[in-house]
Amino acid sequence: MRVLDDAGQPLPGASVTVAQTRHAFSFGNIGFDFLPRAGGDPDHHAHEDVETFGGGTGRQLERLEHLEALWLDLYNTATLPFYWGRFEPERGRPDTARLRAAAQRFADRGVTVKGHPLVWHTVTAPWLLDLPVAEVEQAQRERIRRDVGDFAGLIDTWDAINEAVIMPVFDNGDNGITRMARELGRIPTVRLAFEEARRTNPGATLLINDFDLGSAYECLIEGVLEAGVQIDAIGLQTHMHQGYRGEDAVLAVVDRFARFGLPLHMTETTIVSGHLMPPEIEDLNDYQIDEWPSTPEGEERQADELVRHYRSLVSHPSVQAVNYWGLSDDGAWLGAPVGLVRADGTVKPSYTAVHDLIKGEWWMPPTTLVADAEGVVRFRGFAGEYEATARGGRTVVLSFPNPGPTRIDVRLPSSSGVDAASDLL
Amino acid sequence: MRVLDDAGQPLPGASVTVAQTRHAFSFGNIGFDFLPRAGGDPDHHAHEDVETFGGGTGRQLERLEHLEALWLDLYNTATLPFYWGRFEPERGRPDTARLRAAAQRFADRGVTVKGHPLVWHTVTAPWLLDLPVAEVEQAQRERIRRDVGDFAGLIDTWDAINEAVIMPVFDNGDNGITRMARELGRIPTVRLAFEEARRTNPGATLLINDFDLGSAYECLIEGVLEAGVQIDAIGLQTHMHQGYRGEDAVLAVVDRFARFGLPLHMTETTIVSGHLMPPEIEDLNDYQIDEWPSTPEGEERQADELVRHYRSLVSHPSVQAVNYWGLSDDGAWLGAPVGLVRADGTVKPSYTAVHDLIKGEWWMPPTTLVADAEGVVRFRGFAGEYEATARGGRTVVLSFPNPGPTRIDVRLPSSSGVDAASDLL
Repeated sequence: MRVLDDAGQPLPGASVTVAQTRHAFSFGNIGFDFLPRAGGDPDHHAHEDVETFGGGTGRQLERLEHLEALWLDLYNTATLPFYWGRFEPERGRPDTARLRAAAQRFADRGVTVKGHPLVWHTVTAPWLLDLPVAEVEQAQRERIRRDVGDFAGLIDTWDAINEAVIMPVFDNGDNGITRMARELGRIPTVRLAFEEARRTNPGATLLINDFDLGSAYECLIEGVLEAGVQIDAIGLQTHMHQGYRGEDAVLAVVDRFARFGLPLHMTETTIVSGHLMPPEIEDLNDYQIDEWPSTPEGEERQADELVRHYRSLVSHPSVQAVNYWGLSDDGAWLGAPVGLVRADGTVKPSYTAVHDLIKGEWWMPPTTLVADAEGVVRFRGFAGEYEATARGGRTVVLSFPNPGPTRIDVRLPSSSGVDAASDLL
Repeated sequence: MRVLDDAGQPLPGASVTVAQTRHAFSFGNIGFDFLPRAGGDPDHHAHEDVETFGGGTGRQLERLEHLEALWLDLYNTATLPFYWGRFEPERGRPDTARLRAAAQRFADRGVTVKGHPLVWHTVTAPWLLDLPVAEVEQAQRERIRRDVGDFAGLIDTWDAINEAVIMPVFDNGDNGITRMARELGRIPTVRLAFEEARRTNPGATLLINDFDLGSAYECLIEGVLEAGVQIDAIGLQTHMHQGYRGEDAVLAVVDRFARFGLPLHMTETTIVSGHLMPPEIEDLNDYQIDEWPSTPEGEERQADELVRHYRSLVSHPSVQAVNYWGLSDDGAWLGAPVGLVRADGTVKPSYTAVHDLIKGEWWMPPTTLVADAEGVVRFRGFAGEYEATARGGRTVVLSFPNPGPTRIDVRLPSSSGVDAASDLL
């Protein structure tokens, strides 16, 4: 960064304080817990019988306040739930206002918000059950247009479709979406999700997302791309209730999907801090136990594994996002101790360890630098946003969206006022 | 069938002998064993170091004669090997003459011949190894045109591509085809196989074939069809060295693939008559033992399971072919006792049991029928070809390619001469 005065002359010896304010890399977690906090109706607990996938309900607001502070200190991207069966249990009465309030609350705190998912065969709207497939498709298309439209500008990243690999064949009880996918086929179902979302919000980042990390998902993606559907990022789930798979296995998967030349988002990450789910369980949902405690040994292991996981993923050029699935054990999916915070609100070693990475080792705190004879200060940090402040003078925002060396000229006299940075390259 | 005289008048009371001569359903087996018998060079055993997938080599011709008689008495479709690395180990010296002789010998005996496979990443031509991908693709395209062209009329059914699901990702050592598939992608690789074969022999029946029977293969097929590639039949392998999967499991798979509305060929069927391969083996090729004996209990089980397997498959409207993978244990793939004939040439219970089905319960032997007052004789049998012979008179060939009721007029006076049947419907 070259420091200039208002006349454009370099300022040798100028003293500038640089501080990172945001990572370009998306470090995310679900924000399901905070719907009650988001204004609107804190006692909104309608349809408790409909399955959720994380996020406690009915918590006291003061406990949520504490959890929210921990959340905001670590993450920059929140995933909010748009499971159709919960979002619109009665046709025509969508939960839009409450979700908008929750999204807005995150946005106001500088957090990017993502919606999950627009099409899925689980937690489907019950009123689809009696409709013929053509009307299910019509309702699905309208739902996408409505919700993507209602949230445009606030939510511009969507899991357009979730788990399309098994969508037409998974035995999920009778429901409208499985029937639709079986009749249309996978690729037309994926196409309709992307088509409606893209038309409604052309600038949105639209993902295909799956837990299948093998040839089936590769084949589906090939077919979808061959059919001309534009995917913006590939979502890879990694719920590791049966144990951390290790850097090599995870990176091998990442490499296989990197072949498509698209950004990869690790959309659903979990590592338990208790005993592991037995390896013979095929569908994680089949393991339901009364209590799944977090243990001291498990917490040490989880912290270690999460650090290894983040290190390996952040090092891969195709990976642009790692989203964790639940901050607190309270309300965690399947009752598993996957949180970085215990159910009582105290932090586990994993919270501290991941925080030490994201906001420590990978983060540039306010650092005072002195310009050389050409007025240049050099610093090295993660892609993202920074603020530079002249001693006693103005502050400018510096944006480095991509990794790699960048040169920038900044007018930063030691005076008052705020200016925008002009990018040299 | 209405029996008419040469003037077209019904012949009430006419006596006609009807006999089935062929099943429309394809009951097949590999014919790899008989290459030495097919004329040409019986001592042709070049490149013994290259892997084979069934078929003994170097057998005495008299033993082959016995085996061939058993083969011809049971099956109507032979699969011949076109593994590129064996077929053309030196570039420009394909094994065409010997394969033509083998195919011709089958064809002369009324057997339909199928070629397997045109594109596969195993047993690839070694000389592809040093070529850049564009030249591998060029050589692959030329190979398809040459071989499909050389055998047109003799072989009009081809496995155009084998195991495309894992083709770009299976660790098979460095070879030209894996490299090509990785660079082109699965769908363009499938497309090139079908495109070249179709262009060369537009009337051919072209299959995609795989051992993957899950979502990956479904996704690939969806993508290939979506990309506009015309598949004539879907090939499903069922090597059951680890045990018969049972009617329900097999029919569930068949139903999943029947959804595409295409004929299904069970291309590679095996059931062992000895101990089962342990269930933890993932790649069948990884189980190599010195001796894998056929046992009396195993032979009874195999006979029972094969009958159940054939019954369930033949009952399914989408299944048009069941091809078994090896008649004799001598030279069987992986050394497994999958044959219907023991290595010493004696038949196992499975041979007798399957023969009792295909040429017994499902077969119409010469049967004398007497026409009613309208000159009509009624009979019920499997789709296929039949001969009808008037007493002391001519013989006509009756063709019933599809299941379902058919009415046919046949001029069958009790005189000499042969006439063609004219189909009423």
